Amino acid sequence: MIVVMEKDANDEQIAHMVQRVEELGLKSHVIRGAERTVIAAIGEKREHTREALEAGSGVENVLPILAPYKVASREVKPEATQVVAGSLKVGAGELGVIAGPCSVESEEQILSAAHAVKQAGATAIRGGAFKPRTSPYSFQGLKQQGLELLAAARDETGLAVVTEVVASEDVGLVAKYADVLQIGARNMQNYRLLEAVGNTDRAVLLKRGPSATIEELLLAAEYILNAGNPNVMLCERGVRTFETHTRFTLPLATVPYLRRITHLPIVIDPSHGTGHAYLVPDMAAAAVAVGTDGLIIEVHPDPEKALSDGYQSLNYQQFEDTMQKCRRIAQAVGASL
Amino acid sequence: MIVVMEKDANDEQIAHMVQRVEELGLKSHVIRGAERTVIAAIGEKREHTREALEAGSGVENVLPILAPYKVASREVKPEATQVVAGSLKVGAGELGVIAGPCSVESEEQILSAAHAVKQAGATAIRGGAFKPRTSPYSFQGLKQQGLELLAAARDETGLAVVTEVVASEDVGLVAKYADVLQIGARNMQNYRLLEAVGNTDRAVLLKRGPSATIEELLLAAEYILNAGNPNVMLCERGVRTFETHTRFTLPLATVPYLRRITHLPIVIDPSHGTGHAYLVPDMAAAAVAVGTDGLIIEVHPDPEKALSDGYQSLNYQQFEDTMQKCRRIAQAVGASL
Amino acid sequence: MIVVMEKDANDEQIAHMVQRVEELGLKSHVIRGAERTVIAAIGEKREHTREALEAGSGVENVLPILAPYKVASREVKPEATQVVAGSLKVGAGELGVIAGPCSVESEEQILSAAHAVKQAGATAIRGGAFKPRTSPYSFQGLKQQGLELLAAARDETGLAVVTEVVASEDVGLVAKYADVLQIGARNMQNYRLLEAVGNTDRAVLLKRGPSATIEELLLAAEYILNAGNPNVMLCERGVRTFETHTRFTLPLATVPYLRRITHLPIVIDPSHGTGHAYLVPDMAAAAVAVGTDGLIIEVHPDPEKALSDGYQSLNYQQFEDTMQKCRRIAQAVGASL
Amino acid sequence: MIVVMEKDANDEQIAHMVQRVEELGLKSHVIRGAERTVIAAIGEKREHTREALEAGSGVENVLPILAPYKVASREVKPEATQVVAGSLKVGAGELGVIAGPCSVESEEQILSAAHAVKQAGATAIRGGAFKPRTSPYSFQGLKQQGLELLAAARDETGLAVVTEVVASEDVGLVAKYADVLQIGARNMQNYRLLEAVGNTDRAVLLKRGPSATIEELLLAAEYILNAGNPNVMLCERGVRTFETHTRFTLPLATVPYLRRITHLPIVIDPSHGTGHAYLVPDMAAAAVAVGTDGLIIEVHPDPEKALSDGYQSLNYQQFEDTMQKCRRIAQAVGASL
Repeated sequence: MIVVMEKDANDEQIAHMVQRVEELGLKSHVIRGAERTVIAAIGEKREHTREALEAGSGVENVLPILAPYKVASREVKPEATQVVAGSLKVGAGELGVIAGPCSVESEEQILSAAHAVKQAGATAIRGGAFKPRTSPYSFQGLKQQGLELLAAARDETGLAVVTEVVASEDVGLVAKYADVLQIGARNMQNYRLLEAVGNTDRAVLLKRGPSATIEELLLAAEYILNAGNPNVMLCERGVRTFETHTRFTLPLATVPYLRRITHLPIVIDPSHGTGHAYLVPDMAAAAVAVGTDGLIIEVHPDPEKALSDGYQSLNYQQFEDTMQKCRRIAQAVGASL
Repeated sequence: MIVVMEKDANDEQIAHMVQRVEELGLKSHVIRGAERTVIAAIGEKREHTREALEAGSGVENVLPILAPYKVASREVKPEATQVVAGSLKVGAGELGVIAGPCSVESEEQILSAAHAVKQAGATAIRGGAFKPRTSPYSFQGLKQQGLELLAAARDETGLAVVTEVVASEDVGLVAKYADVLQIGARNMQNYRLLEAVGNTDRAVLLKRGPSATIEELLLAAEYILNAGNPNVMLCERGVRTFETHTRFTLPLATVPYLRRITHLPIVIDPSHGTGHAYLVPDMAAAAVAVGTDGLIIEVHPDPEKALSDGYQSLNYQQFEDTMQKCRRIAQAVGASL
Repeated sequence: MIVVMEKDANDEQIAHMVQRVEELGLKSHVIRGAERTVIAAIGEKREHTREALEAGSGVENVLPILAPYKVASREVKPEATQVVAGSLKVGAGELGVIAGPCSVESEEQILSAAHAVKQAGATAIRGGAFKPRTSPYSFQGLKQQGLELLAAARDETGLAVVTEVVASEDVGLVAKYADVLQIGARNMQNYRLLEAVGNTDRAVLLKRGPSATIEELLLAAEYILNAGNPNVMLCERGVRTFETHTRFTLPLATVPYLRRITHLPIVIDPSHGTGHAYLVPDMAAAAVAVGTDGLIIEVHPDPEKALSDGYQSLNYQQFEDTMQKCRRIAQAVGASL
Repeated sequence: MIVVMEKDANDEQIAHMVQRVEELGLKSHVIRGAERTVIAAIGEKREHTREALEAGSGVENVLPILAPYKVASREVKPEATQVVAGSLKVGAGELGVIAGPCSVESEEQILSAAHAVKQAGATAIRGGAFKPRTSPYSFQGLKQQGLELLAAARDETGLAVVTEVVASEDVGLVAKYADVLQIGARNMQNYRLLEAVGNTDRAVLLKRGPSATIEELLLAAEYILNAGNPNVMLCERGVRTFETHTRFTLPLATVPYLRRITHLPIVIDPSHGTGHAYLVPDMAAAAVAVGTDGLIIEVHPDPEKALSDGYQSLNYQQFEDTMQKCRRIAQAVGASL
């Protein structure tokens, strides 16, 4: 931590901040520069330190040196983590593909979709049973019945089931049916829920909130890891920007950036990341080229009739074409798909 | 709803979309323009309609005409709502001031703060007992003990208690102690929690998520209203932008904009909205000038020692000066403070 | 400058960076922490240093300590600058009000507007003669004829003339007629133009670009100041964010933030900052409450017929009401309006 | 254009807006819905119409149906445009690669770079002679001497020269030496400059401003096309968002989106789009996968010593590796590189 003092900070203020640094269990080191004095606060402690120093009198700024997350950090665990959940393998060279409808709507729909995406090469089936919807008047999902249908789809196809859990009180129920518990973007900082999935033995797909920083994403992962569950996949699904021609802006540079700082695998969601079906195939291809460990793609037997997200869902043929393109690119970059 | 067809959409596609519109229970009206055909879909139905039409073949765009929220809308209820919770009155000409520390830290701290903010003119005390923290290693709040201390502060000062609830399973407990249940920005789209507070008889302070649109904020309010609780205050606490000199960007135009479209009262949070104590007094004054119904301000006996948010907390003297300034401006704009 | 080395940076890399720091004319100071080594680079030099160090091998990050601007900084000139241009005084306690139509459209229009805004209390007239328009098919301004009409309006009312200059080759011409040269948001980083206005003796109103950081704004001002022109007013006119209910997001915290770091006066533009006439009066009031040194407001005799920006222009009555409200607030905060 | 009236708009207001629509040369068509009346304004006119209607009394909103650009639109010219400038071909199946240093620094540097990038497969050399720099204290380029060195590099290698022009008065000079005139992001809305390059016979590389919408980008292109120059390449170089781990956020979905609405070719700049050399190779690969028509990449013989942008420049080996990766991906997607 570097405490930058104001230009006209006096000796008393500097001495006070040195004392504050030491009270926090850190060693201090004062550097008097041409225009500013700065105090280096040396030690391993990360918690609370920055906040505690920023409110000091005569302090202009506090610059952190260490990242605030630990367990998620590649410095702590240099080798890549591979998450395995039934038929799904993600990370460390394995590229997993999760595909299926936004919502589970009926037995016929989810079984048909499971067969189709498996045929095209997907390694897991997705489908929402508990749906967090912006409007209280929208379809909210089939709930437990949806979970049962997902399990039936797994029984028929062997595909691992990925489905969202929206509240800590549902974690037990959802974990009974799902192979991977998905934390939606809106719940990325629902810490009670993060702790609850951290206490299960199910893999977790943690979606980045649309305005969360990467640091906040890794700290959210840290809640899960810290609770004892090491099987966390990070999912980039787009951030909110001024752009309106796409629903969200999908920053693929997240993949090589995260690769450098964390050992956790990374999954790209080109469906939510663009919000338009016609943009999904090219962005899925780009995600493979940039080195993603996984893809999650919305696929529906008849997007026009979907109860949710039809505008960004591929039909079976479009998904198959997408997979073929991705496979060629995976080959070009040496990934296994 | 206006369905804009692509330039080269053919008659079959147009006929199909007309049929889709009518299947959704709306009347259709086709307009053939110089370069485009558009289909007006007429009726009161808002749910699901836009999504259902966007996925249609030959559709370029769907432009909504009606807002997706209803109960929160000023069109439905033209007169302003005033929320009353114990000593706190917000809206319809009454300007409420909620002040206090970010976290309840000790009996001495919260009682001292309650007396000080009351003295300066606040009409409610705030303090966090359940703290949602970005890092799992940060102070997480005193929980039930914190609630008891807040109740003690109310007993001593008569000030209404405003405190955050972070999970639906805690709503019963928090409602036992609090006059106002605060939904934090990170939980604005935690729908299970919104429904839970909607089922209580406590007033609710609903904070806008840092990347939520105004429409999403009103739809979140709609979850609470729809569950039967009419006492909702909307809180603008800043949005996430590219700016870094403030923690968030506080868009005060939210106040007159919301005033026009909703009857619900609006509270401004200049503490989170700026993230720096020295910016709070001027932004609080500006909020009063722009016509806010309420303020929520972080005040701590000794910000430098605060367990959270010290950098953006006012000390007692700063808060008193802020209140004096706000009072002069309230007078200038004819508000009651 | 603090050079943060990667966790596993080796001694050779550290020694190399120490040498680089010294080659740049700075003193180096190595601090070996628990997890990282950092090198403090001490000295007054700001130019190029950060960039030059960031590309070094083993460097994780470079944290600047000094701001990159100098002449604009309050550290260099602690007392506030007041800009005076004819009837307009802005800064150091004087609140100037610049009002008038977006474009000069006709003699009748600009003379009528000049009289009306003067009557209501404005201290300068604005009007565009050279109009930078997003579309090549939009009205581009009356050019020299517009300048002549502005000068006529000054002759009749005594109001100082504020008008935009869009290219360095026009600076001589525009300076012949105008009291204040406005640099539009789209030209904030048109450095040739900045230098050209810096070489005149006319005051300059420099508008912030919609995605410019405050540091970039001050560096743009530095181009003008550095060329020898000290009379620069900074104008906040809103930034581009994900919000769509306002055209731009107007962050009023810019005022107290800039006040702390620069001596230059600050002008708020609530017309472009909101993009809707009905939001302008309240935001103008808020700007006065937050401590602005000036306002620039679009006023048109008949906004519905305006050739540009009608949707955000006030009519005469609305402007008069706005001025009355602002005057009451100015009194409340002790400003002279 | 669809004019949406307010819920309580009266017949007089509706009749007035119908008259306004017809005054603008459009046909009107009134649709009375369940909650709103809307007026469809039918015709080909795009200029000024929206603005002119938005300021009307009783108008809630105006929804445009037609895009405001014409000549850039794929509706007007369905077949893809290929830009050819010397050795550089971009678009219609040809993938061009522009590479070289940010600034021309010396004869040795630029000749060395030209040979190296050609060897690796680049089809044009870039290098800045006129440098727009955020700070007036930074290196501003070698100006005419830089142009001469670029021409020498072309003479030696046969590579087309791409270089930036920053002011309309320089266009003649730069056009004498360059094959492609680059308009930098900061000048995207410098309309005088756009017109000036539109009046040359040189190809133009138009960079998107960091907060420009796609519509604004196409309208900027329209200025150039409208002046008579059809050889425009659009360049995505990243937008400004809240993300800080990359300098800008590079939204690759721009490529398939633009492909659908414009015939102009699209070039991706992964150097500015990420701001860190280590992110460039993967993002260049992703750009090829997503279907870009061109790449522009900063390459420097010794990035650590570069006078500008060293942190985001590749060295020769890194560039060669990047080209090999891109070539494999080009093959996988059927592009010619």
